[in-house]
Amino acid sequence: MKSGEDLQPFFHPRSIALVGIPRGGGAGRVFLQGLIDQGYSGEIFPVNPQAEFIDGLRAYPSLREIPGEVDLAILLVPAQAVKPVLLACAEKKVKGVIIYTSGFGESGGEEGKRREEELRELGRGAGLRILGPNCMGIYHPQGGMAFFPGMPKEPGRAGMISQSGSLTILVSRLAEPQGVRFSKMISLGNECDLNSADLLQYLAGDTQTEVVAAYLEGVKNGPAFLSALKAACRRKPVVIWKSGRTPQGARAASSHTGSLAGSGMAWEALRKQTGFLLAKSLEDYLDLLTGIYHLPRELGKRMAILSGPGGPAVSATDACEELGLEVAELQGKTRLRLKEILPKTGTSANNPVDLGLASVFEVDLYHRAAEIVAEDPGVDAFLFMGRGAVPEENWRYAAGLAAARERLGKPFLAVSMGDFYLDPKARDLLVKAGIPVFSSAERALKAYAQIYFLGRRKWTNGNS
Amino acid sequence: MKSGEDLQPFFHPRSIALVGIPRGGGAGRVFLQGLIDQGYSGEIFPVNPQAEFIDGLRAYPSLREIPGEVDLAILLVPAQAVKPVLLACAEKKVKGVIIYTSGFGESGGEEGKRREEELRELGRGAGLRILGPNCMGIYHPQGGMAFFPGMPKEPGRAGMISQSGSLTILVSRLAEPQGVRFSKMISLGNECDLNSADLLQYLAGDTQTEVVAAYLEGVKNGPAFLSALKAACRRKPVVIWKSGRTPQGARAASSHTGSLAGSGMAWEALRKQTGFLLAKSLEDYLDLLTGIYHLPRELGKRMAILSGPGGPAVSATDACEELGLEVAELQGKTRLRLKEILPKTGTSANNPVDLGLASVFEVDLYHRAAEIVAEDPGVDAFLFMGRGAVPEENWRYAAGLAAARERLGKPFLAVSMGDFYLDPKARDLLVKAGIPVFSSAERALKAYAQIYFLGRRKWTNGNS
Repeated sequence: MKSGEDLQPFFHPRSIALVGIPRGGGAGRVFLQGLIDQGYSGEIFPVNPQAEFIDGLRAYPSLREIPGEVDLAILLVPAQAVKPVLLACAEKKVKGVIIYTSGFGESGGEEGKRREEELRELGRGAGLRILGPNCMGIYHPQGGMAFFPGMPKEPGRAGMISQSGSLTILVSRLAEPQGVRFSKMISLGNECDLNSADLLQYLAGDTQTEVVAAYLEGVKNGPAFLSALKAACRRKPVVIWKSGRTPQGARAASSHTGSLAGSGMAWEALRKQTGFLLAKSLEDYLDLLTGIYHLPRELGKRMAILSGPGGPAVSATDACEELGLEVAELQGKTRLRLKEILPKTGTSANNPVDLGLASVFEVDLYHRAAEIVAEDPGVDAFLFMGRGAVPEENWRYAAGLAAARERLGKPFLAVSMGDFYLDPKARDLLVKAGIPVFSSAERALKAYAQIYFLGRRKWTNGNS
Repeated sequence: MKSGEDLQPFFHPRSIALVGIPRGGGAGRVFLQGLIDQGYSGEIFPVNPQAEFIDGLRAYPSLREIPGEVDLAILLVPAQAVKPVLLACAEKKVKGVIIYTSGFGESGGEEGKRREEELRELGRGAGLRILGPNCMGIYHPQGGMAFFPGMPKEPGRAGMISQSGSLTILVSRLAEPQGVRFSKMISLGNECDLNSADLLQYLAGDTQTEVVAAYLEGVKNGPAFLSALKAACRRKPVVIWKSGRTPQGARAASSHTGSLAGSGMAWEALRKQTGFLLAKSLEDYLDLLTGIYHLPRELGKRMAILSGPGGPAVSATDACEELGLEVAELQGKTRLRLKEILPKTGTSANNPVDLGLASVFEVDLYHRAAEIVAEDPGVDAFLFMGRGAVPEENWRYAAGLAAARERLGKPFLAVSMGDFYLDPKARDLLVKAGIPVFSSAERALKAYAQIYFLGRRKWTNGNS
């Protein structure tokens, strides 16, 4: 696969030059901090004619002066210097270039676009590929690569491409407590050379990546993107947060990365054609990612709701119905067995199963109720809204759900309404057992429904 | 106002008897823990024939043995004991009774409803009012009353009625970091006597309460409720989370508090008729409450979006358009002045104003940009998506926004995408300055739009 080989220096560089890294503070320093923080083990060459050392690393006045090969160069120079530095990269036989510098196509006007064209031609001529300009580049925790300090170090199974660099940083951090970790993240920027289609294709073929995620404002090369998306959807689940759906949003997108957005309608049609999960907000995106990351591929729509608080259980029931899911009708036998274990009053053995206030003092009720309900042939999946009154009980609640999930083999969703509900340790026990945690029943069910309906369609078409 | 007087012993009891409080652990103990934790200064009389002392308090074998008057009795006895204890309350001339005990109307069947009827008649005959059964009762921080330990101690301006007791606990905790505090919360339960209409009327007339919030599954007395709701909406902003909207949800509501839910359609019509904010999920409810609590009453729909990350700003633009708000068109003069302060590249002086990556190192950019944009006559309100790179900068970011909000007098919304974005101290600086904080631009704008459109309608009708 050609594009895979081209991308090798971006994900597995043996050395990285940071060209134009500032001596003092300033935004560009985050690239060096990111690499150090992430433990990059290759050689790092800061390039700055005014510095001898930067963060203890020997600095070089120019690329040419660097002794030895440079696999990847990250350009942090002003816009007018990008072209000469790119020429120097070509001369130095650098294999891949990431251009952080902005002030190209996103500035509006033809001039910026023309200069991007020029960069691409230059790169092509020299046999080097370019990511950007106006991008953050590559986050690849297993390879020790990050573009910002504090990004999670543990690698995972999700790969993400993004037309917003800051969003990748944000998503990596927000997904961490959800147990969602990344194999690779690619900030695409203006895509003068490498574009969303190339990176989508790369992630679809990447063995470290099991789930593909994307934040997109628009696409540069429609037919190539469509074909890459089709292929990716056939191999892996794909989640796309599409913004720039409205005319005003598209205008904003164009001054952000210079991309043409296309209407919301077109993306709905595209979804029908290819089969991906479509998010329209940060919450949607995180929830879909969390769900698809943890849930098994085979899901059903008959939900059992096991809840301590009664009100949220009623609201969850509404959400099921409004989303096209079903609140499973429990068999008489199941209800009788539930009645045997539940306190006599303040509870309900119908679905939603109301475990009552006492359940926070007696979290085993959840585990025992789950065992009973799982034997009911009319139940496909579980939604749990519970907690223990004190931390130890909370952990016991979570550990018991984790064990039940393992034993019963059905999809579990857990709801933590605020950290007051499930503390970080309890949450961690759940996600490690493949139980996605959501901040409300409504959000849990909204994500579950989209994942379920997509899965059913794929299965029916025989291309899951 | 008669019902206000009747309710005096519920909110300002000089003494409380906890009848049937367990000696050891058990769910009922939370009522005593709640009062102690909240610093209730009146007399507490635990009633339990098997105990001499409970938590260091002298216990009494029965109500009759209590020396002195009992203003409020909280009944934690088994269902079959409720009637005899209520008779004892009448004999003791208790003024108000909260019945926690469940196993009445919510159990299904006519028997439970008949017994509720009986309780009400008994209370009426004895001149005492009843809250419940199947409820948690009253949270009134200024009066030192809570029904669960760990509920916030600082009182505030929101009053809430709820047909889910656990939800009140949850909402009090989730609203705390949003700067939303409560004057009073009332868990209604099965409403055998006091109902949602009575308490709505009470909160509408309560001087401590400026915003009225409600979680409702259904109403017992339609005409009284409608009239109380109309009156409340005329005096104060009202936020209602209505669940039990769907047939299945209504069925679940009926086994939760025995209430008849009514269809979702009817509530939409009711909203048009009276003018309240309608929530359909926990997120909606918290966001609307947060917005209405902090925002000024006069709002406009022309939004300025000031953002560091570009992607979320594009998504915010979509959200504005989809919600019927406008992304303000900035004047040429405003854009020129913005260009003077913004870094030359990686930014945009159009709305959404993209402050670029450097803004996390130079948070003053937000404050200076806000000053400039506030002078543009085409801008009604601001949405900020920013942060500082380190805690000190984050606090400076927030303190600067707080000062600008004060000086410029326009509505500000702030977005904190995860705690990574705004830490608790930064968040606190914002909410204390009347700047509501939301977890995404989409959620902020969704709440703002509903509040804006309701306000406009009320203003147009001349009854704001």
